Amino acid sequence: MERAGVDALLVSHLPNIFYISGFTGSAAILVIEGAGATLFTDSRYAIQDSEETEACVEIVRGSLVAAAGRHLAGSGARRIGIEAARVTMSQKSTLDKTVGRRARWIPWDGKIEAARAVKDAGELAIMREAARIACSSWEEILPLVKPGVLEIELAAELEFRMRRKGASGPAFDTIVGSGPRGALPHALASPRAVGKNELVVFDLGAILRRYSSDLTRTVFVGRAPAEVRRWYKAVLRAQSAARGVLRAGVSAHQVDAMARSVLQRAGLGKRFVHSTGHGLGLEIHEMPRLARGEKELLQAGMVVTLEPGVYIEGKGGIRIEDDALITADGAEYLTHATRELIELG
Amino acid sequence: MERAGVDALLVSHLPNIFYISGFTGSAAILVIEGAGATLFTDSRYAIQDSEETEACVEIVRGSLVAAAGRHLAGSGARRIGIEAARVTMSQKSTLDKTVGRRARWIPWDGKIEAARAVKDAGELAIMREAARIACSSWEEILPLVKPGVLEIELAAELEFRMRRKGASGPAFDTIVGSGPRGALPHALASPRAVGKNELVVFDLGAILRRYSSDLTRTVFVGRAPAEVRRWYKAVLRAQSAARGVLRAGVSAHQVDAMARSVLQRAGLGKRFVHSTGHGLGLEIHEMPRLARGEKELLQAGMVVTLEPGVYIEGKGGIRIEDDALITADGAEYLTHATRELIELG
Repeated sequence: MERAGVDALLVSHLPNIFYISGFTGSAAILVIEGAGATLFTDSRYAIQDSEETEACVEIVRGSLVAAAGRHLAGSGARRIGIEAARVTMSQKSTLDKTVGRRARWIPWDGKIEAARAVKDAGELAIMREAARIACSSWEEILPLVKPGVLEIELAAELEFRMRRKGASGPAFDTIVGSGPRGALPHALASPRAVGKNELVVFDLGAILRRYSSDLTRTVFVGRAPAEVRRWYKAVLRAQSAARGVLRAGVSAHQVDAMARSVLQRAGLGKRFVHSTGHGLGLEIHEMPRLARGEKELLQAGMVVTLEPGVYIEGKGGIRIEDDALITADGAEYLTHATRELIELG
Repeated sequence: MERAGVDALLVSHLPNIFYISGFTGSAAILVIEGAGATLFTDSRYAIQDSEETEACVEIVRGSLVAAAGRHLAGSGARRIGIEAARVTMSQKSTLDKTVGRRARWIPWDGKIEAARAVKDAGELAIMREAARIACSSWEEILPLVKPGVLEIELAAELEFRMRRKGASGPAFDTIVGSGPRGALPHALASPRAVGKNELVVFDLGAILRRYSSDLTRTVFVGRAPAEVRRWYKAVLRAQSAARGVLRAGVSAHQVDAMARSVLQRAGLGKRFVHSTGHGLGLEIHEMPRLARGEKELLQAGMVVTLEPGVYIEGKGGIRIEDDALITADGAEYLTHATRELIELG
């Protein structure tokens, strides 16, 4: 806080509040001052808080932001760090009213997120297990992938298995995109029946003790034609190229560029409509982004996805995604499911 | 828009964007002007958009808010309605830069939410089915509720059944709170084993075609002692009292007060630590709130939860929650599971 030149920090983003304080509820504001931290939450969490966090807890009836503002007014803080990318215009207006005009608000974004990006050993142990849960659940449902099965049935089976293995829930709405639906990069599982001679994209993740995993695999129901094999190989080569450069000290955009250049040379550059990957942890998308223009240098201890894909309108999609822990000289992969093309049925 | 005195509206809250435009993706800004609507999203949704929405779609690389701002600058809008409770300080700063200083930003909150609160026949058909899915899934897992079963196993079974019945996912992290954990109003299912002679609170919901249901039931494993029966009856009477006054034209706080007064007379007022209910629809918590101080008049077509509860530290919790469609002279209940105390095993 001294380095940032602020007397107090107002933290409003829940994953950041959990990271700092351990509080797991769904409504809170955390104020950090030299004297300690105060957590403002509502009465639903009165018992929970005292178990979870060492911060001083204030149970608030009404607006949490207003309560935090009154507290800051009372403590006389003048320079207050604020998460400008998280605080809404309405909340800011409440703060202006409650704290008063003498306060200076210092945009103070991304600092907790940057700390969160580098995982410690305890976090990594959870993330390895979260990745293992996703992979083994996916492997277990492969025998069910046959013509006639519904995408939502496969999603239900995946999520059930992840839950039974200890996940607190899916990390995001599970994607099962069969046939032409696979061409939608975010094809949430639908009541569509999987057909013969179709690609099926699975994108799934488990939340374990608040940390996410994220796995994508694509299979073919039937014997894949030459065209599909060519696409699949290009995506696999793109991911391998990204793997080849991934290590501490490399810039984020270089990893993206490696995957992208492979797909461009294969004539599929325009089919790769998203970025190569993203940080993973308490949020399913967090820092760093592996995308064009991202100059950030990757650090050992960061966990990122590598997920190139191609999307062919009317035909389907192919994406291969793994979770990688960046190390000094490369990466440790948390997801271990085979990357080879699986032909079923 | 004329009535609101604005030339353009910037909509950033995703459930509002879906409600207005039909777009289901996870990143978008919608700008509405006299000439029509423009949806700004990213390349992941290039195919999806054109299928879903009649708005003009612009695929953006980079900041969606900046693109919307440049568009508004080009269209010459001067008075622009904005969702101040949704737009962050950073987004507002981007808008100030891109739209320029001549624009006037008019806080324009809650209007789409107010329209969303009153459901039409198509929405209600989905919500009835979403409620049915939650109820029948809960009824099906009752035989599994025995000493030794883990809370997370029960959550997994519930979510699996909801999925198999067509839900796209749980409406929130499923709550299974056994024994003393039930005293946490938000006791997410944990690896704890259910014990003999314990209360178990289940709070679950299904998302069906983007609409949520929300059901809470509490059972006793074993034969409930007199104290537990007394608590249970008080909560049931509190809910029945709320049911007794629920109809179009009643104010939201009156419904809350009815439930609260029953628990107060039973000496449990301080154990009822939350409000009586909330609106339900595209979000799990939406307008109206059935809480102290809420003067809003309820309207026919609103769907609300009624969910009084008591929480006894060290012993457990009891909550009974149903989903009610408000009508001119009362309510239609969407959830039909029995409200009587079930003793298992």
